[in-house]
Amino acid sequence: MSGGMSPSEARSWAAMILEREGIALTEQERGAIEIADFGLSDLDRTGLEIVVYVNTDRYCAKELILFPRQTCPEHRHPPVGADPGKEETFRCRRGLVWLYVEGDPTPDIQARVPAGSEDHYTVFHEITLLPGDQYTIPPNTLHWFQAADEGAIVSEFSSTSRDEFDIFTDPRIVRVPKAE
Amino acid sequence: MSGGMSPSEARSWAAMILEREGIALTEQERGAIEIADFGLSDLDRTGLEIVVYVNTDRYCAKELILFPRQTCPEHRHPPVGADPGKEETFRCRRGLVWLYVEGDPTPDIQARVPAGSEDHYTVFHEITLLPGDQYTIPPNTLHWFQAADEGAIVSEFSSTSRDEFDIFTDPRIVRVPKAE
Repeated sequence: MSGGMSPSEARSWAAMILEREGIALTEQERGAIEIADFGLSDLDRTGLEIVVYVNTDRYCAKELILFPRQTCPEHRHPPVGADPGKEETFRCRRGLVWLYVEGDPTPDIQARVPAGSEDHYTVFHEITLLPGDQYTIPPNTLHWFQAADEGAIVSEFSSTSRDEFDIFTDPRIVRVPKAE
Repeated sequence: MSGGMSPSEARSWAAMILEREGIALTEQERGAIEIADFGLSDLDRTGLEIVVYVNTDRYCAKELILFPRQTCPEHRHPPVGADPGKEETFRCRRGLVWLYVEGDPTPDIQARVPAGSEDHYTVFHEITLLPGDQYTIPPNTLHWFQAADEGAIVSEFSSTSRDEFDIFTDPRIVRVPKAE
């Protein structure tokens, strides 16, 4: 583990942000906030804090919390059996998030690719999401996102989540919640 | 039309409530808030204000606004073709909502069945939802809900919405947005 935030510190911070912003969680949900460090142990820069509200075999809803300049690294949701792959809608609730998807690369993107990981970021079509803005990502489409300096809260509405099948561009990444 | 709220008044009120509660909408979404009066022209008592964030062929997400003591009347989401019927999760964000589903009737329920419509309410298993609480309703299950005195905001996460197929217990109800 590097000198950054621990998962339990990240969980407390995420819970505090949601409370401050008036997004109510139950006590159980607060304790169960998922801290995804993607196996990189660099949570301050590459990570995501997740509240899973519901994930049935038909749909899923989550709240995503991003700390200032925190990045969810590039990945896609491939077909799994009869499922064509997860389709998902990101709706910004607080702060500002830059989302990058396949398509014409935007010159001079506003996010900062995490230093040392440049090889693992390949799509640069920029979409800026402010509160009230949303964007739907088709299945099996590469994407990554980063919060601006004030952090962000993003609601994710989607088909069923099967995170264990996600394919990341960075071969070092393991999308498994880290044991504390 | 009775002496109650007009649809455009309801739309303005719902937009004001969301803004006050920090739930950001785009200008276009504000103007498109759906006012469901269920054909009863009694919006103050029986009605629902709806923001549809997304409704794909796989999932749907909405924000529901209920004015004080406003009721969404009893209905179910039947199978439609290959779809077993809409499955939906209600998550309370603000206020208090009483949800009634099939099951053991709760004695002395807290909601008030709209006067004159008593014959059209048949399920009375009460679930109280405060901010942070949620409940998932299986397909094809009768349910209705009412906000308490302060009104409520409820996030709905679900499989695809096909409102035109909903089956209401009250045969007078037509689930079609009313032209203004």
